[in-house]
Amino acid sequence: MPDNRVVVAVDAMGGDHGPAVTVPAVLQCMARDADLEVVLVGIESRIQEELRRHRDVPVERLHVHHASEVVGMDESPALAMRNKKDSSMRVAIDLVKSAEAHACVSAGNTGALMATARFVLKMLPGIERPAIASELPTLKGHCIVLDLGANVDCTPQHLLQFGMMGAVLVAAMEQREQPSVGLLNIGEEEIKGNETVKQAAELLRASGLNFYGNIEGDDIYRGTTDVVVCDGFVGNVALKTSEGLAKMISTILREEFNRNWLTRMVALMAMPVLNAFKRRVDPRRYNGATLLGLRGVVIKSHGGADRFAFEQSIIKAVREVRNQVLQRISERMAIAHEDAA
Amino acid sequence: MPDNRVVVAVDAMGGDHGPAVTVPAVLQCMARDADLEVVLVGIESRIQEELRRHRDVPVERLHVHHASEVVGMDESPALAMRNKKDSSMRVAIDLVKSAEAHACVSAGNTGALMATARFVLKMLPGIERPAIASELPTLKGHCIVLDLGANVDCTPQHLLQFGMMGAVLVAAMEQREQPSVGLLNIGEEEIKGNETVKQAAELLRASGLNFYGNIEGDDIYRGTTDVVVCDGFVGNVALKTSEGLAKMISTILREEFNRNWLTRMVALMAMPVLNAFKRRVDPRRYNGATLLGLRGVVIKSHGGADRFAFEQSIIKAVREVRNQVLQRISERMAIAHEDAA
Repeated sequence: MPDNRVVVAVDAMGGDHGPAVTVPAVLQCMARDADLEVVLVGIESRIQEELRRHRDVPVERLHVHHASEVVGMDESPALAMRNKKDSSMRVAIDLVKSAEAHACVSAGNTGALMATARFVLKMLPGIERPAIASELPTLKGHCIVLDLGANVDCTPQHLLQFGMMGAVLVAAMEQREQPSVGLLNIGEEEIKGNETVKQAAELLRASGLNFYGNIEGDDIYRGTTDVVVCDGFVGNVALKTSEGLAKMISTILREEFNRNWLTRMVALMAMPVLNAFKRRVDPRRYNGATLLGLRGVVIKSHGGADRFAFEQSIIKAVREVRNQVLQRISERMAIAHEDAA
Repeated sequence: MPDNRVVVAVDAMGGDHGPAVTVPAVLQCMARDADLEVVLVGIESRIQEELRRHRDVPVERLHVHHASEVVGMDESPALAMRNKKDSSMRVAIDLVKSAEAHACVSAGNTGALMATARFVLKMLPGIERPAIASELPTLKGHCIVLDLGANVDCTPQHLLQFGMMGAVLVAAMEQREQPSVGLLNIGEEEIKGNETVKQAAELLRASGLNFYGNIEGDDIYRGTTDVVVCDGFVGNVALKTSEGLAKMISTILREEFNRNWLTRMVALMAMPVLNAFKRRVDPRRYNGATLLGLRGVVIKSHGGADRFAFEQSIIKAVREVRNQVLQRISERMAIAHEDAA
């Protein structure tokens, strides 16, 4: 029987809510997964205080690792990395580096997490830049989009590597051969797009990946391809714009259902339908972006995540370890390297 | 009393539906605006055939101008411009050039419209590149976003000019002093973003515009600024991604309300609320993008526009003429030129 045991280092202090969210989420995940061990990293007194609120803490699988500092959500990534060597974020990453944990999860400052993880863990061979990859819901299920903001200036080579990593991620997590890869562009014709994207399309076409070709913004949610490749500037704008639009739509929908006593009655009756709808598009289900390309599994949770959302990030970390995502990316890059040689 | 008369050249053949949509939309606009004259440009027999279906055609204000060719929606912009000198699109633009019309409206091929308009009309002094500007709904009302796809590689100078044109457009159309201008970026801190965007922020800060600073994707729909400036690649992805998400949300909402007889009953009762909601986010209300920076008012309607949506494009053209948008942009650019000299 294979060893199913996974150790996850959780930055207990990260995010808008800290231990009040991270600790209950960890306990929930551990209750469901008997092979999961967790190291809660952060200010010990704060973590213990939160733990005392819960019964049935699995003490033999749950460890607390003290870290005296916390990286602020708006702190400069460079300064945080240089000055806070005993932050919960840094120590959680250190545990991955020293192989005491298989993965780490943090809801902290994205820039600091990326900079620190890159500095401590280093890149996988053949990968020049890390990418932030996340699942988004589509009409057909979901897709993986990368990069969502780690890189503001990408070369065609970087985009090719994102495509390879994204394809391996989907293949590993969903046991699928040759997931389709689309390149985000502003027209389907090959003549469109800027120079970088044009050259990236050439590289992707010759890469042996199941390259679909250029896709447009609306193809993301249409589910046209399993993987969507773009530079971090474009990906981040697309993601944040989506968040803004979803927020606007739900606000207006709520306003209309709240207009008067009649519409509020209708809302009450429509509640089961509206809830079923909400469940299907709930962004919390997709919480947890993977920092791909590093020598270690690092998952970034949304800063504002609640318990349910933070649980999804932990589950994602565990699944990536069990599905050997890192090893599979390394193997894929080695093949690419041989092909190029 | 000022002369309120406006002449609009309408490409009757453009879009997915041609005269079946463009002609009724024109008649509807003319019925509401007694000072509006229209030149319907296209294959005369097709236009007359459609006109015969309608009563009360205001023959003294409605003219038909024959053009023998039609630009296909997927045709190469360069080839269309070179080879189809008698296309409805080209002739409508020619009428603006010769001052027989104040503005033109087309639902045809965006690339061909942009290339042809730029070739025929030329740029306003001080503007290097045209931009596609469109209104989007926000939680506070609406905003103007540009560029939405005319330029895939922008310099900081181009982005500055987009900011100036966008601000003038809002000021002119809504009688507002100093509308706020935001620069689409991936973080609010000044250190973030790529080099082009960083330099554009410097230029915008020194421009005398009411520059808000960097904004993120979610600020578009939040209504943080009146004008959102970005390069055409990013803007196009943001727009198309929004279209895709809105489509996904409405599809899933419809599916949930259609699940069984009970949910369909609820849908029936919720109809007035859902319709009120739909009216507020209806993209047809915002149909009609302005090709800004040209020596002429050119409005691009969505290719799939229905009658109501196409009407909005005509109304927009008329309002831009009456509010002297072109003249005001020229004046603004002349001031910028003097400041620089």
